[in-house]
Amino acid sequence: MNDESTTLPLPFRVALIGAGGFFGTNLARHLAPQVADLRCFGLHQSFPEALSGLPWMAGDMADAPLAEVLAGCDTVIHLASSSAPGSDLDITADAQANVIASLRLFDHCVAAGIKRVVFVSSGGTVYGIPGHVPIPESAPTQPITAYGVAKLAIEKYLEVYSRLRGLDYRVLRISNLYGPYQTTAKKQGVVAAFLAEALRGEPLEIWGDGQVVRDYVYVDDAAEAVVAAMRHQGAERVFNIGGGTGMSLNDVIAAIETLLDRHLEKRFKPGRPVDVPVNILDCALAKLELGWTARTDFAHGLTQTAEWMRTWCDRQP
Amino acid sequence: MNDESTTLPLPFRVALIGAGGFFGTNLARHLAPQVADLRCFGLHQSFPEALSGLPWMAGDMADAPLAEVLAGCDTVIHLASSSAPGSDLDITADAQANVIASLRLFDHCVAAGIKRVVFVSSGGTVYGIPGHVPIPESAPTQPITAYGVAKLAIEKYLEVYSRLRGLDYRVLRISNLYGPYQTTAKKQGVVAAFLAEALRGEPLEIWGDGQVVRDYVYVDDAAEAVVAAMRHQGAERVFNIGGGTGMSLNDVIAAIETLLDRHLEKRFKPGRPVDVPVNILDCALAKLELGWTARTDFAHGLTQTAEWMRTWCDRQP
Repeated sequence: MNDESTTLPLPFRVALIGAGGFFGTNLARHLAPQVADLRCFGLHQSFPEALSGLPWMAGDMADAPLAEVLAGCDTVIHLASSSAPGSDLDITADAQANVIASLRLFDHCVAAGIKRVVFVSSGGTVYGIPGHVPIPESAPTQPITAYGVAKLAIEKYLEVYSRLRGLDYRVLRISNLYGPYQTTAKKQGVVAAFLAEALRGEPLEIWGDGQVVRDYVYVDDAAEAVVAAMRHQGAERVFNIGGGTGMSLNDVIAAIETLLDRHLEKRFKPGRPVDVPVNILDCALAKLELGWTARTDFAHGLTQTAEWMRTWCDRQP
Repeated sequence: MNDESTTLPLPFRVALIGAGGFFGTNLARHLAPQVADLRCFGLHQSFPEALSGLPWMAGDMADAPLAEVLAGCDTVIHLASSSAPGSDLDITADAQANVIASLRLFDHCVAAGIKRVVFVSSGGTVYGIPGHVPIPESAPTQPITAYGVAKLAIEKYLEVYSRLRGLDYRVLRISNLYGPYQTTAKKQGVVAAFLAEALRGEPLEIWGDGQVVRDYVYVDDAAEAVVAAMRHQGAERVFNIGGGTGMSLNDVIAAIETLLDRHLEKRFKPGRPVDVPVNILDCALAKLELGWTARTDFAHGLTQTAEWMRTWCDRQP
């Protein structure tokens, strides 16, 4: 038995929807050398130089000519999303921009004969406040934010598209991503926010008492999970993708202090109603079915992220 | 302690959204003598004479002037919905007409200071194919139809409106409704369909082998559950409302044969992919929290329904 998978490109012609943002940029760079064809689509490129040389189409999923975007592709990776904090300001507009636009995408996937959709969902929000941790995929799903409900609704609609239209899919409920290309622009990503503040010599702004626990997964590990989901054969459809251990905000800060070898000033602010107190994903199913497990330990991922963040901070006005 | 609740109108000023259809017509007639104020709103009245004398505003929830509809009300009962079979033909249009239009309604509820929304969800579809029966509210929710996903998404969005906008709500996951004012026009309601065919002397058309099991609840019982949900004090939000026992299609037909005292000709057709094999709701929570239980036995409900159906059939061309 020869090991084709490591020497030949994977036989997928991929349309990456939402390729311009943090995870999209990482994923595009991760996939490009591995797959037969990659087409990137998104609203705009946050880091054009990081995507240089990759085929790019700009547009809004809600009204772009998706037939054109998907033409000749067999696999769609859907990670386009409005940002989490904004979604709660206008829930209806958020549902329109995320849920309805996703269904329009799936209609186009059916019409284009797409073989599989990999949908990047949110392990940090679809469960809401968990009854216990780590959270398996079978746990109740009661999101406390519009962002989480939109992700959950899209998951559920995918099952209907699968049953009624034959559209195959996998869902990855990814936990808190961190890594290069995550900036502070969208007010998402506490690792990026803390690192930027630390590198700028500003006090770290903490919502709540810092005891909120999250599951962090390094962006390269999550990219590998996407590849595994593209290739997966089996009956399961929904997978948690996380670091599998919980870290409090205070733990994250301590790790940054260790990395930078200095004490950081903290400024504690009132907790936010959109923050669940704890979220740790049980990723046993992904290990069993996808052969996937988070490989990057937090200290290493943090070092990589800080290195990138340093150059990014240096280039900010 | 005097028993005010039975002698005085309930102190609710109610806007009934989706008042013109089968359940809406029944609910409007049930509520009108009980509440301080009732305003009916819907696309059109299926039975204008049944709603005569009740305040009526016509319009589509998606674009009607809802501020006007809700003005002066404190309670909204939301049962507007596109019909189940149609929703799977254009999933995106269905989500637009049901999910987005419901969020628009909730935005208006927040603006109008509505004290509580009672949302009529679907106990027959939100669970999908159950792991076991009877199904408690805590069971997994994996709808196999767009209709079911839309209902589930609206439920989940209500929780977010409650948390972020302070909009109080109750969800009733009602099983298969039957009773007067259910016609064969919308291809919904197997009791109505079988009764109409039987009364017309036509063969009964059965999808599948007749062994599909459903939970049937009489429309007056469900209307009482809505009143209980309007009045409920307590932390629970989501309640199953069903007959609590399962009946196969063949059981239903046998009951109709007993009622009409004659043998009915059956025509079996291939099963439909949108039909779950079995659905029976566990309604213990409604009993405990709402003090509600289905009171009408099937033979009695069927007699009432057949009586109405006879006059309806007589008036059809």
